[in-house]
Amino acid sequence: MVNRSISKQTLLRLPLYLNYLKQFGENQPEHISATTISEALRLNHVVVRKDLASVSSAGKPKIGYNTKDLIAQLEAFLGYNEMDDAIIVGAGKLGKALLTYKGFHECGINIVAAFDTDESLYEEDLGGKRILPMEKLMDLCVRMGVRIGIIAVPAENAQAICNLLVESGILAIWNFAPVHLEVPDGVLVHNENLAASLALLSKQLRAGRKTP
Amino acid sequence: MVNRSISKQTLLRLPLYLNYLKQFGENQPEHISATTISEALRLNHVVVRKDLASVSSAGKPKIGYNTKDLIAQLEAFLGYNEMDDAIIVGAGKLGKALLTYKGFHECGINIVAAFDTDESLYEEDLGGKRILPMEKLMDLCVRMGVRIGIIAVPAENAQAICNLLVESGILAIWNFAPVHLEVPDGVLVHNENLAASLALLSKQLRAGRKTP
Repeated sequence: MVNRSISKQTLLRLPLYLNYLKQFGENQPEHISATTISEALRLNHVVVRKDLASVSSAGKPKIGYNTKDLIAQLEAFLGYNEMDDAIIVGAGKLGKALLTYKGFHECGINIVAAFDTDESLYEEDLGGKRILPMEKLMDLCVRMGVRIGIIAVPAENAQAICNLLVESGILAIWNFAPVHLEVPDGVLVHNENLAASLALLSKQLRAGRKTP
Repeated sequence: MVNRSISKQTLLRLPLYLNYLKQFGENQPEHISATTISEALRLNHVVVRKDLASVSSAGKPKIGYNTKDLIAQLEAFLGYNEMDDAIIVGAGKLGKALLTYKGFHECGINIVAAFDTDESLYEEDLGGKRILPMEKLMDLCVRMGVRIGIIAVPAENAQAICNLLVESGILAIWNFAPVHLEVPDGVLVHNENLAASLALLSKQLRAGRKTP
């Protein structure tokens, strides 16, 4: 039995292990050790060992994990086998990029549609994905029981869209607008501040250059 | 004197405080306390107090921080006043979204150009930003001393692009391809796995619903 209550830091590292394990293609080794993974990803081997132990109890001393099994266990643990529907609000460049992004499906996320006020977008065919009028948002979310909403509108509109999503029954919001959102208790918000992420990388780079 | 060696977790929270402080517009209060910020952002007040103390020593008991000063101190600490150049490789939907994203500039990042192999993109004008042929990448990076590269190409091409960036003198890579990159020592990689982030939100939502 593995431990189901693990830290957010571990949850963020598990997809890294999964990506690493899936990249071998035909050269996939039958077994792989926590040490090999930690060296490839430049992580502390104690951390990797502990992370993997929280999703699989099948690691053997000196042999490691069966690679195929470990991939399956990571995917199951991360919920990539259960599909969840999500909608996007805002079909500008970012909204369209998210709408047509191929990687969500294998992570168990089905992007149902995007919504926008710009009528000229409604006829666009984006790989089978549709951009719909805002008026249809609430009805679609309620009818399909959609619980995840992605905000890809300018900062000044984000709070109004957030309120609409909450009214439509959305319980988890992925917010790309660089603004703080007020939500009722019980609604999750994950802020994806792309500019701040990049600035952090630039800051780390500068800090590294200053160190002799 | 404030402490300059702070945790990555703190560095990730500082932009949240900054966004919150900047959203008041004309209603900006003269002073603001760590408690007010922690309640608005639903964070532990001890954590917020400690984070703010690491960028400013000007907080006063019962009064809090001068809001304007705190904004300036956060911006200075996060390096938003020093400009860093960056380039993007891959001008698909995501690459274009990043190329035209308005938020980078105020975080101290100047996106110089994007590069792509698709000739049909070279004539596009994206708000003054250009898409250039791959052959020009190394020369531009060396000439301008660009140190930050953003990878927005499909997973199967990401390692080859990463190698080219490293050869061109890039020292920090922001990787949107859901794949593990091998880099020499001294090169920073920040993986932005959008699908995994969204899947994590969906997992948290499911975990929350199971709890009574």
